[in-house]
Amino acid sequence: MNIAVDAMGGDFAPQNIVAGVAEALRQNGPIARLYLVGNRDRVQAELRRHGPVDPRIEIVHASEVIAMHDPPVQSVRRKKDSSLTRAIDLVKRGEADAVVSAGNTGALLTAAHLKLRTLEGVDRPGLAVVMPSPRNMFVLMDAGANLEPHAINLVQYGIMASLYAQQILRCAKPRVALFSIGTEEMKGNELTLEAHRLLKQTQLNFVGNIDGHDLFADMADVVIADAFVGNAVLKACESTMRVAAGWLKEELRRNPLRLLGMLLAQGAFKALKRKADPDEYGGAVLLGINGICIKAHGASSPKAVKNALRVAAEFVEGQFNEHIVEEIKKFHAQIQQSPIAQPPLSATA
Amino acid sequence: MNIAVDAMGGDFAPQNIVAGVAEALRQNGPIARLYLVGNRDRVQAELRRHGPVDPRIEIVHASEVIAMHDPPVQSVRRKKDSSLTRAIDLVKRGEADAVVSAGNTGALLTAAHLKLRTLEGVDRPGLAVVMPSPRNMFVLMDAGANLEPHAINLVQYGIMASLYAQQILRCAKPRVALFSIGTEEMKGNELTLEAHRLLKQTQLNFVGNIDGHDLFADMADVVIADAFVGNAVLKACESTMRVAAGWLKEELRRNPLRLLGMLLAQGAFKALKRKADPDEYGGAVLLGINGICIKAHGASSPKAVKNALRVAAEFVEGQFNEHIVEEIKKFHAQIQQSPIAQPPLSATA
Repeated sequence: MNIAVDAMGGDFAPQNIVAGVAEALRQNGPIARLYLVGNRDRVQAELRRHGPVDPRIEIVHASEVIAMHDPPVQSVRRKKDSSLTRAIDLVKRGEADAVVSAGNTGALLTAAHLKLRTLEGVDRPGLAVVMPSPRNMFVLMDAGANLEPHAINLVQYGIMASLYAQQILRCAKPRVALFSIGTEEMKGNELTLEAHRLLKQTQLNFVGNIDGHDLFADMADVVIADAFVGNAVLKACESTMRVAAGWLKEELRRNPLRLLGMLLAQGAFKALKRKADPDEYGGAVLLGINGICIKAHGASSPKAVKNALRVAAEFVEGQFNEHIVEEIKKFHAQIQQSPIAQPPLSATA
Repeated sequence: MNIAVDAMGGDFAPQNIVAGVAEALRQNGPIARLYLVGNRDRVQAELRRHGPVDPRIEIVHASEVIAMHDPPVQSVRRKKDSSLTRAIDLVKRGEADAVVSAGNTGALLTAAHLKLRTLEGVDRPGLAVVMPSPRNMFVLMDAGANLEPHAINLVQYGIMASLYAQQILRCAKPRVALFSIGTEEMKGNELTLEAHRLLKQTQLNFVGNIDGHDLFADMADVVIADAFVGNAVLKACESTMRVAAGWLKEELRRNPLRLLGMLLAQGAFKALKRKADPDEYGGAVLLGINGICIKAHGASSPKAVKNALRVAAEFVEGQFNEHIVEEIKKFHAQIQQSPIAQPPLSATA
């Protein structure tokens, strides 16, 4: 398979991107060709730092860069020769099977949506992320793509994320939950109440609402949320981990006894850090797009880039998008047959 | 001052409620009379366990209890003699200056809104909670009251929560931020974009958007969010702390060396636990209601109840609601004068 990588996207680009690519290729996975898209000179300079250049790498020059805080829609329109849009063009032309970028999330969403379009039957794409749970992992979707969703979008996210949990995380019968402000069915806002009603009609293993308190209680393998809430929750969890680690470190350094304790127990701290490290989870996946798009986070380390490439390869190998189209088709056929979901009879009937 | 306490509300009522009340009164604060509202026999039995009954306590019998998962609106309507509604009645009749309940949040919101009404100039009440930040604390509002807010509601929350930070948390010039999915002004959904525009026109010390990543970065003393997002973030942070502590404990117990380290450093763990303990922060405050309403969390310990009583007393002493009315009045006068906020000129003008 061929993968296109936006070499210039991210807080530490191109260095971390190129380093991650080099690491991934050393592991000899299924990648036949890896397009590094970006400023040729800068990418070449970075590549040289990692020894002989792997023959699978091909640099595709792009003269522009969409910065992390550029306005998404305008920058995609204006910077026609940006590394991000050029990388997506490779997927559009069928030269690459997937694209990986650690750049501007909004620009990636915009360009992917605009150039690749959505999959047949999918109304709006959404961003799926993997989060750790006590026993395993769960998929949170949408983590920030579709800011004014309708209930039907959330249902489609449930279908796509359930397939993610099943196919990529190897979860046999994913439990799908709807994020709300309480577990009771009647709790929520207009959007979640309607989504709840629709989700009950699907073939999904829908387990009802969960709220923030249950997030890590191993009650669901898929958590559906609207983009604003998903983004808020994801980031709030990350900053809570960070601030708690900071506070603990401060407290541990307050006296020599505690410091000694910290040294003796440092294996435990490292294990926890690994468990909570977003770099381990390979980035977010933009699902519902006619093409595999992986968004590594902005501050991606080489390890994060390597893991994003691993995830991209898994999606390509599993023919993931073909399965989404099938599942969405089944869902639409089923709700057409279901008497509950039919529009109410008109007054003249 | 007189305080009414819902003795039967909460997961551990009446025992923890009565214990918290007994503890609070032992500290000899400003409370002249404390109404314990609930089943007389059960409250009396609990009281007996704490030695001679404080003469400031008066039991007000209520024959019914609104359970934690009762549907809010219906239960307030049907259970006319519930401890929760009877406690609010005491505030309504002017016999109590504030009400404290650890019971059903939705029922408390409903009953308070219905019986006490909103303060002059306030359109919708909201729930304010205090969260720890690296240097101090910040106020998050709305944490779950108003599920379909308009932008003007969020602005009023900013005004009320800013007053909270100033008057109760002793923050001289509170920095007010709007919770969104990114710090840039153009990031957000329709609601936050409009709220952002309005907040810029207020006299508040508005510092712009923050997102989940900045939550504990000491960038704001007040964080405004809609109820769904505020509730999601609050609970997600709490469960992240809980799950991280659980994982760390598990890792620390994996071998004797780590266990020894944990013992040596236990002071640090305890300090962190205290910092993150919601019981320390005295519960949520329902702001915008014509009466002081404190919502202690459902699983409140006696300490949490005691701290909720302390917060209630602070709000009463500070004549907090009178200040809200003044500030809201100033805001409305100011936006009427401001040319930006006036409706656009009509075509015929």
